[in-house]
Amino acid sequence: MDKLKAAIEKIMEKDCDMAVISKNENIFYLTGFRPSARAFLILTDEPFLMVTSMDIDEAENSSIDVFEFKKSEDVKEKIGSLSPKAVIFEPSLPIGTFNKLRDSFKFVIEDIIGNLRMIKEKFEIEYIKEALRIAEESFREIEVEGVEAMIAANLEYHMKIKGSMKPAFDTIVASGIRSSNPHAKVSFNKIKTPVVIDWGATWKYYYSDTTRTIVKREVEEEMLDILLDAQREGVKTAKPGVKASYIDKVVRGVISEYGYEDNFIHSTGHGIGLEVHEPPSLSVNEDIKLEKNMIVTIEPGIYIKGKFGMRIEDMVLIKKNPKILNTLPSRI
Amino acid sequence: MDKLKAAIEKIMEKDCDMAVISKNENIFYLTGFRPSARAFLILTDEPFLMVTSMDIDEAENSSIDVFEFKKSEDVKEKIGSLSPKAVIFEPSLPIGTFNKLRDSFKFVIEDIIGNLRMIKEKFEIEYIKEALRIAEESFREIEVEGVEAMIAANLEYHMKIKGSMKPAFDTIVASGIRSSNPHAKVSFNKIKTPVVIDWGATWKYYYSDTTRTIVKREVEEEMLDILLDAQREGVKTAKPGVKASYIDKVVRGVISEYGYEDNFIHSTGHGIGLEVHEPPSLSVNEDIKLEKNMIVTIEPGIYIKGKFGMRIEDMVLIKKNPKILNTLPSRI
Repeated sequence: MDKLKAAIEKIMEKDCDMAVISKNENIFYLTGFRPSARAFLILTDEPFLMVTSMDIDEAENSSIDVFEFKKSEDVKEKIGSLSPKAVIFEPSLPIGTFNKLRDSFKFVIEDIIGNLRMIKEKFEIEYIKEALRIAEESFREIEVEGVEAMIAANLEYHMKIKGSMKPAFDTIVASGIRSSNPHAKVSFNKIKTPVVIDWGATWKYYYSDTTRTIVKREVEEEMLDILLDAQREGVKTAKPGVKASYIDKVVRGVISEYGYEDNFIHSTGHGIGLEVHEPPSLSVNEDIKLEKNMIVTIEPGIYIKGKFGMRIEDMVLIKKNPKILNTLPSRI
Repeated sequence: MDKLKAAIEKIMEKDCDMAVISKNENIFYLTGFRPSARAFLILTDEPFLMVTSMDIDEAENSSIDVFEFKKSEDVKEKIGSLSPKAVIFEPSLPIGTFNKLRDSFKFVIEDIIGNLRMIKEKFEIEYIKEALRIAEESFREIEVEGVEAMIAANLEYHMKIKGSMKPAFDTIVASGIRSSNPHAKVSFNKIKTPVVIDWGATWKYYYSDTTRTIVKREVEEEMLDILLDAQREGVKTAKPGVKASYIDKVVRGVISEYGYEDNFIHSTGHGIGLEVHEPPSLSVNEDIKLEKNMIVTIEPGIYIKGKFGMRIEDMVLIKKNPKILNTLPSRI
């Protein structure tokens, strides 16, 4: 209920008297109810949920009022009956749905919940650590051999039987020349080094996200050293009060020193929790300052087109002495 | 390229001179390039892609021009440089992104590509059948015994090693009282009948979606008979020229005859292809008429709160003699 209160304060700060929360992760965060279909949390003096027939039983287990809707018009009507003056909608709301809900009231497009979600409560940190524990334990069970798809299938299988709800994302196993594509799909190629493995588990809707690269040749070893150096420097700076963009600057700086500036083609990391990628972004334009109990990934990578690439990714808890949550060694 | 032409004709029909395609499935459908991050396909006389640095190499393999963008403003600027008079945006575009792209031009919110995608080309039908073949073959490999999560993990493992890119959705294995929830998450409960298993595979981005229910007690057998009766009647009507809502009416009618009208709490089915749920919807308000080579699911279900529930789901190719694509028996 504290979270609901904090959300309602945010609404007042924006001079609004209602917010329509449509992002499933945010509805879950505020109410404990996880929609399986389109749903809306209407935040006013007396918040309530609007759900379809599919979700009505589940929603009624939450502590706030629930109404069923069949069509968007039902939601629009219900909102209208409260005569709001100014309504906050979320940036993630599809424009088609927005057009069905908008009315004569003023509106503001703002993600008021995403910012609340950045700082993790104690139980959230535990859930994220549990997801990570499952992911790492599963990695320890498998052999990195054979074809890429088999390694991914094994990892996902072990995560599931250890209690992961689902893979946090499509597990990446990209080896040899394919490692130069940071988002490569698994293939049925037999692996050769380097082997980039990027995987995560889900515990009670909270995610983990980790990458390890298995190297063999000296040139690969050397590149991994650069990434570990960059990551180490990044982790050191991941303290409360530091701008998220500064970590990116530090990590990118180390990689640049070695001449690979143009080969680090993605941001340094991202917040993680109920979404795999959530604020803050550790990237050049992110103004958000880190705060205690945020959890972010730090994942420097170097990709050489047509040759190979690699990445190392750990999850870091922001505090005065930044803590790497991973227990798996960086070098496998 | 025929698809691009068809899309551009749709733009002209709406008196517009540009469309901004932002839905990844639609970009893939029109260009063969699958974005791994936010991307835009700008449809004008000379269509082009706008992608981030992550996707630039992949995008350049497609046959149309590619530009890189770093921020939404870059996309807005590029659009502005072409001085469009009226631009189509997709209903799925997040309102936050829309606000960053809109400009002085007029705009229309319309899903012009979704309708094109409903009718499948020959290769698309083959891909969907291949996804279904993988899913069914995987089902044949597993034993339905032990705990729910184990059954789901086994199914997903077999699908992946047979070439499925990923599960089409979180595999549902819901048994005993939990079967009364059509969207139940897997648990670590030992199964008891009925066991509802809803699963699908992905072949080259095309999905399958199937449900089987394993029954034992006579009361369960009888309910399954009702579903099979309803499904049979639905399949018979799934012909070109028939309104999608009519199939829903027929299926719902059979279930109502047996007195379970209020227990069939979802629609009768949905189109399937590059998305698991895509138009047409086989539901009460769907005005779309079926056409040859659409593929839809027909999935009647009965859910008795606090007791049990079940569903049976097959994929049907629309033609004069509607064809069930599944080969797995309805009764396992």
